[in-house]
Amino acid sequence: MKILVINCGSSSLKYQLIDMANEDALAKGLVERIGIEGSILTQKANGEKFVIEEPMKDHKDAIKLVLSALVNKKHGVIKDMSEIAAVGHRVVHGGEKYANSVLIDDEVMKSIEDCIKLAPLHNPPNIIGINACKALMPNTPMVAVFDTAFHQTIPEYAYIYAIPYELYKKYGIRKYGFHGTSHRYVSKVAADMMGKDISDLKIITCHLGNGASLCAVDGGKSVETSMGFTPLEGVAMGTRSGSIDPAIITYLMQELNLSIEEVNNLMNKKSGVYGISGVSSDFRDIEKAAAEGNHRAQLSLDVFHYKIKRYIGSYAAVMGGVDCVVFTAGLGENDPSSRSKICKGLEFLGINIDEKKNNEGRGFAKVISTDDSKVKVFVIPTDEELMIARDTEEIIKA
Amino acid sequence: MKILVINCGSSSLKYQLIDMANEDALAKGLVERIGIEGSILTQKANGEKFVIEEPMKDHKDAIKLVLSALVNKKHGVIKDMSEIAAVGHRVVHGGEKYANSVLIDDEVMKSIEDCIKLAPLHNPPNIIGINACKALMPNTPMVAVFDTAFHQTIPEYAYIYAIPYELYKKYGIRKYGFHGTSHRYVSKVAADMMGKDISDLKIITCHLGNGASLCAVDGGKSVETSMGFTPLEGVAMGTRSGSIDPAIITYLMQELNLSIEEVNNLMNKKSGVYGISGVSSDFRDIEKAAAEGNHRAQLSLDVFHYKIKRYIGSYAAVMGGVDCVVFTAGLGENDPSSRSKICKGLEFLGINIDEKKNNEGRGFAKVISTDDSKVKVFVIPTDEELMIARDTEEIIKA
Repeated sequence: MKILVINCGSSSLKYQLIDMANEDALAKGLVERIGIEGSILTQKANGEKFVIEEPMKDHKDAIKLVLSALVNKKHGVIKDMSEIAAVGHRVVHGGEKYANSVLIDDEVMKSIEDCIKLAPLHNPPNIIGINACKALMPNTPMVAVFDTAFHQTIPEYAYIYAIPYELYKKYGIRKYGFHGTSHRYVSKVAADMMGKDISDLKIITCHLGNGASLCAVDGGKSVETSMGFTPLEGVAMGTRSGSIDPAIITYLMQELNLSIEEVNNLMNKKSGVYGISGVSSDFRDIEKAAAEGNHRAQLSLDVFHYKIKRYIGSYAAVMGGVDCVVFTAGLGENDPSSRSKICKGLEFLGINIDEKKNNEGRGFAKVISTDDSKVKVFVIPTDEELMIARDTEEIIKA
Repeated sequence: MKILVINCGSSSLKYQLIDMANEDALAKGLVERIGIEGSILTQKANGEKFVIEEPMKDHKDAIKLVLSALVNKKHGVIKDMSEIAAVGHRVVHGGEKYANSVLIDDEVMKSIEDCIKLAPLHNPPNIIGINACKALMPNTPMVAVFDTAFHQTIPEYAYIYAIPYELYKKYGIRKYGFHGTSHRYVSKVAADMMGKDISDLKIITCHLGNGASLCAVDGGKSVETSMGFTPLEGVAMGTRSGSIDPAIITYLMQELNLSIEEVNNLMNKKSGVYGISGVSSDFRDIEKAAAEGNHRAQLSLDVFHYKIKRYIGSYAAVMGGVDCVVFTAGLGENDPSSRSKICKGLEFLGINIDEKKNNEGRGFAKVISTDDSKVKVFVIPTDEELMIARDTEEIIKA
């Protein structure tokens, strides 16, 4: 069975065609500048790159082009669109309604639309992508896989903020959490690597990309995560502040005379390691500057590592212990130095990093803890697309 | 040597006269409704209560009355004002300048005034109290003891927020922390009770009153605390939200059309366990409602305990372990049920509560952990006034 996985942004679209027989990605592609001059599709398949530069006025045009690239005689990977058994869509926000992936019907579409006010930047392009696919492949089943779904098992006392309860009931203000598909995927792989049933494990997953979040996975279920009502909460990120004294928001608005939009922009785009270092949001640039003696660059790294370390301690407390820590996503997979600094000082929890293992090789799942480390520490490349394809297959088979 | 300790609020004033020979409080008093109709002074000394109801137009009037109560022929405890060797003043905010208590001179007054913008509600009445004392006792040395001072040892990577660094340099936006005198006092008592040098101990102090904060005290120094730029950050409190997704602030302003003042009021006065429960900010009321089956009341308690538990885990991570946990202040000293619930699930850290010890007696320092608990857990009544008096004595002797 071949499944097409679609991840729609406002002017871009990522896709993969996955053969579920062996879970191989037959083709991976990216469409950029949809509806903007200079639209371009780049597909990698059979070890070669295939580029189409052609005007695309909307997502429907883009998906039309994706399908034509997939069936392209020379560069394609399937003969006919009918080989696509189903489409799995990444949807950011499923609100409180979806704790699992779901076959898309009219009611589901309505629910995704209802969640627009909780994810005004993300759900609209997701909806456009689904509608475009439905128009072009009306008889192909579609599945929605939500970023928030995995975290719906978080208990009420952990997702409720200490603000008037009416704000939860009336406006849905609670912790939702994000990166759920990634946390779910890597925690599952970790359990497999340990040769244990996930229901017996207490796992802390650290998804560290430009956006970063941690998750406490107890017995295979998310019981706590660091992102909250929005993806701003939690650890310091590339350009996002993470959690700060909430009084700072109003202080800045008052002292600097900032508007709501300006302060949101400051917290989301000008903060994080970029804001502290003043150098970049890219950790490679920051690490270079730090190595050259830039104090603020070093400080931004220290802050980043420190906050994650604190979360690991608090998630051990949430679960009453920890058996395994997983690092994933861009930085988690590719920055041994960050992994090492985050884990330093956590020996009292039974976390011991083997620096040789930590430093050698990348691009594959590996153990980086010492043989006698009580807590196993893994680096596991995340694969949200594969998880989406698996959910899609499972649902259309059921 | 007898030392007068003064803690000035905007319309109230607490005082104690302490005999440093045995550290006994000779008199404790409270002046309320200063500058408002119905001004009243209540003093407890020699086992009896002495009340003066008399108009007080300002803090100078109030302190005049305090002095007259202290030297009162029938109810007083000293013969003459000259017996007061020094006055120790509680000052909330010392900014980055004061890591210790300090003898008050013109430069110190200037610095306390400079900190008004960081503590607009607290430093002004503190200044008024100092000035009133100086006017009435011009030759008596005065010492300022800052709530923030103890936390000045927090390392830069822990006090810097992940926001543009310029906001720290230009506006002083960083973590300051509060309740420092209390955290310092109880951590010292804990070390004494353990019969160990505080420099060898990792202590987590939980000051749980209507305002609540935790502190990681490593080797006698504060290395982390839960309150931040303001006393709003950290755990959920009586009516304060504690840390929340900062994006909630702007979301509420936008969706509910709230002003800066209104949203500040909401976070500070209508949130916390009061906001969740809708019952009260008093834990006795909430516990009663919870026992009667009120779900929101139970939820507010669960949230409160859960957030503190998470902080304990994270502070163990900050220090690379923990030797001792201390509960203090109104709730910390008097609510065995909260202590028990906070510690439940932390056995993996070596924290084991003896429920019998936890439940018996109050009003004195005691161990509540089991004899074989790796981590010692204490209840220690806080005494900020004594700490202020000790600092004052030490400084004027030097």
